[in-house]
Amino acid sequence: MAQIVHKYTLLILLSVLIMHSLFTSVHSTKFQEKKPCKRFTLYFHDILFNGTNLANATAATAVNRTQLGNYKHGMLVVFDDPMTKQNNLLTPPVARAQGFYFYDTKDAYNAWFAYTLIFNSTEHKGTLNIMGADLMGEETRDLSVVGGTGDFFMTRGIATFRTDGQPNAFYFRVKMDIKLYECY
Amino acid sequence: MAQIVHKYTLLILLSVLIMHSLFTSVHSTKFQEKKPCKRFTLYFHDILFNGTNLANATAATAVNRTQLGNYKHGMLVVFDDPMTKQNNLLTPPVARAQGFYFYDTKDAYNAWFAYTLIFNSTEHKGTLNIMGADLMGEETRDLSVVGGTGDFFMTRGIATFRTDGQPNAFYFRVKMDIKLYECY
Amino acid sequence: MAQIVHKYTLLILLSVLIMHSLFTSVHSTKFQEKKPCKRFTLYFHDILFNGTNLANATAATAVNRTQLGNYKHGMLVVFDDPMTKQNNLLTPPVARAQGFYFYDTKDAYNAWFAYTLIFNSTEHKGTLNIMGADLMGEETRDLSVVGGTGDFFMTRGIATFRTDGQPNAFYFRVKMDIKLYECY
Repeated sequence: MAQIVHKYTLLILLSVLIMHSLFTSVHSTKFQEKKPCKRFTLYFHDILFNGTNLANATAATAVNRTQLGNYKHGMLVVFDDPMTKQNNLLTPPVARAQGFYFYDTKDAYNAWFAYTLIFNSTEHKGTLNIMGADLMGEETRDLSVVGGTGDFFMTRGIATFRTDGQPNAFYFRVKMDIKLYECY
Repeated sequence: MAQIVHKYTLLILLSVLIMHSLFTSVHSTKFQEKKPCKRFTLYFHDILFNGTNLANATAATAVNRTQLGNYKHGMLVVFDDPMTKQNNLLTPPVARAQGFYFYDTKDAYNAWFAYTLIFNSTEHKGTLNIMGADLMGEETRDLSVVGGTGDFFMTRGIATFRTDGQPNAFYFRVKMDIKLYECY
Repeated sequence: MAQIVHKYTLLILLSVLIMHSLFTSVHSTKFQEKKPCKRFTLYFHDILFNGTNLANATAATAVNRTQLGNYKHGMLVVFDDPMTKQNNLLTPPVARAQGFYFYDTKDAYNAWFAYTLIFNSTEHKGTLNIMGADLMGEETRDLSVVGGTGDFFMTRGIATFRTDGQPNAFYFRVKMDIKLYECY
């Protein structure tokens, strides 16, 4: 008799465990820290307008620097920059980055970004909204993905910046590693 | 005897299921995708200062456009605009929208917004913080509600923009459909 | 025999309850409304550049005010301000606040902030991203903590501002009470 009870007990425990895993799987994507539910890497190309490169430029200085130090403090750039999968500017863009950045420090180069990644391809349709500090002295720096729309409905996450090159004063490239930890 | 065990088994399973539904109901509001927990539509009235309309104007150009293209690239407007329930500017405002937008594209009209909706009525007290791209070429475009305070404590959601009219160069109206998917 | 079954039943129910509390504890921090999972108070010191205080200044006006009213409408300040634990500017900063604010109202002093708190000490490493309206006429006003990185990975919450002093035109101090309601 006790053996029968035992069997049942095991069965019940097993079913409870299975139910648990089923129910909690709905939530799990949200709370598995450091394991993104979606992840991709894109390259941000900032081609600053210098007065003569109208055809290529995708960004321009809207506010000039202040006199606070020698690191462009206060200079504000508005951009509509292409995002590519490879770090080659000539590869077809898979998204646009629309927003602005400005330099904010008097004794070092630091910037602050707020922008929207706009996807409009067969692969992805929707937007991701990102803001945070670009501490340019650090090898990598994390900004916040604070919201999303369309395919990225209500997502949140981290965008990790890594400078990928600055061949001249009017072009720089940032590798952006987008890790989404809240997916719907 | 086996029947008694069976009865108990059923009882236990039932109680587990009930407990589960009780516990998970707390979370459910958060994960019901595409069904807002709160929703309302407001009209945003942007009345730009033109040098002579000081009494009526609620917004002004703080940064002039750059020379990148012919779509006001870089022009930045700071606003404290009224929000009304009907699309008539003369109806009493139910909220204020304080923030800024700027145009960011060289070959089309596109803007980027970041602002706070401020409610201070008997109906609602609190704020909603919103940011995202206003892709003016699209019939509707989604921005992110990234946070809230007061009655909108910690909410998140989507603000859908639809141009509702632009009778002249110094006034435009946007219908904003606010859908909150995370409510506390 | 029935007693044995009873014992097992109790054991099973107990184990289910324990499992439940273990599993749900992961979520609970997220939904306890109005009880922060992390909280601290910091003082924000804004020392505006006036042309001669280069050594001390940490902020500067990047965009001048517009002519819309007499409350600095449109004036935009970019800052890299120290944050201290006590309200004394001379105490060592425990974080930096990098970002901007601008005045946005024609008939009162109101500002709009977006910035990043940057922690780089033994106590905290990471950032908090904050945005919202600073309704200066209110004794306290709530802004949104919309994201975090590092030690503040994916956090959200409320930053409550309280003006702590403005001894002169080029310095003001705000007490910021940071309450995080979503912690990971």
